Amino acid sequence: MAREKKSEETRGRILDAAVGLFRERGFESATMREIASAAGVATGAAYYYFESKDAIVLAFYDRSQREMEPLVKAAMAERRDFEARLKALLEVKLNYFALDRGLLRALASHTDPAQPLSPFSAETREIRERDIQFFQTLLVESRMKVPADLGPLLPRMLWMYQMGLILFWIYDRSEGQLRTASLVAKSAAMVARLIRLSAFPLLRPARKAIVELVETVAG
Amino acid sequence: MAREKKSEETRGRILDAAVGLFRERGFESATMREIASAAGVATGAAYYYFESKDAIVLAFYDRSQREMEPLVKAAMAERRDFEARLKALLEVKLNYFALDRGLLRALASHTDPAQPLSPFSAETREIRERDIQFFQTLLVESRMKVPADLGPLLPRMLWMYQMGLILFWIYDRSEGQLRTASLVAKSAAMVARLIRLSAFPLLRPARKAIVELVETVAG
Repeated sequence: MAREKKSEETRGRILDAAVGLFRERGFESATMREIASAAGVATGAAYYYFESKDAIVLAFYDRSQREMEPLVKAAMAERRDFEARLKALLEVKLNYFALDRGLLRALASHTDPAQPLSPFSAETREIRERDIQFFQTLLVESRMKVPADLGPLLPRMLWMYQMGLILFWIYDRSEGQLRTASLVAKSAAMVARLIRLSAFPLLRPARKAIVELVETVAG
Repeated sequence: MAREKKSEETRGRILDAAVGLFRERGFESATMREIASAAGVATGAAYYYFESKDAIVLAFYDRSQREMEPLVKAAMAERRDFEARLKALLEVKLNYFALDRGLLRALASHTDPAQPLSPFSAETREIRERDIQFFQTLLVESRMKVPADLGPLLPRMLWMYQMGLILFWIYDRSEGQLRTASLVAKSAAMVARLIRLSAFPLLRPARKAIVELVETVAG
């Protein structure tokens, strides 16, 4: 039991050292040897915990997702309506990753779903599905009325919207990323509005076409 | 005059050799020395025409854009309505780049507007603006009715939609990229429908909000 705990601590220390090094030096140039050295362990030991830098990044995604869960829950508990909660959820994410914009920029070159570190890869599926669940919970708890055909797809569409915002944010060079802040506020209002509009009879054919379109993309 | 022509020929030969090498070997690993050798010129001569591999890629973007112009015009001339023409325009693009999916995949890691090869960079602005002009012409010639506030932004929004489709296409591993073909057909219909809907009085507030949102993103 003590040994397990120690093992987990070492793993966490290597992960922390790696993220620190990625922030300081950039993701591409950091080596496993340097990560091990920064964590105060032998290179072999680092490889025992993580078979590659990619494995470290996957562990970073996983830990981030898990650590954000209570933060998201707390932010949800303080608000009632869908738009305010959606905005709060996005703000939790951006705040959490505030020190990692550079790292996320380096990782953004992995967009190809065939690359393990891509947010759309098979390797990141489990993390992605847990993340999509945030949006499902958000819709249910805010008692948002969603047409039946759109219901199963909407959490995934909101997740895609979130990914687009994060992409905009990592490249946002405005002071304090104020352009992103403005985009978050305006787009959250827009998303809430569009979901409400989607129930209008006039828009039924458009909604059905969108559902079909999203199903094509989601494969 | 003869010298100018010869100079242009040499430049074109280096560009062809480079694109051939990128297709064969991948973009990242090809060197200027290999490109020169494949074009049958001295390395120094290659540098005289292009100061870097990046300059070659910019020339490739520029030439592609220019070569597609008559193809787009011909495709437009054969059709009347907006949806059919939009679909044809997209198909011209995808057909033109059919041999370059691998190269475009390699280049897709340059999304950051701060990178010269990014489709959103200052360096590619002129090419991008000419490309956006295709959509402006398409709207005008198809006599599409567009609300006044949406008018100035719509060509740029359609261009962004095109870039999203191209991104989907370069990562599309379905046979013959049939998923992309389906997405082109469905999304072109959807885009035409949404533009028509945007004129409905019920949707005026939503449209105004979208205009504001796009202005925020376009900065």
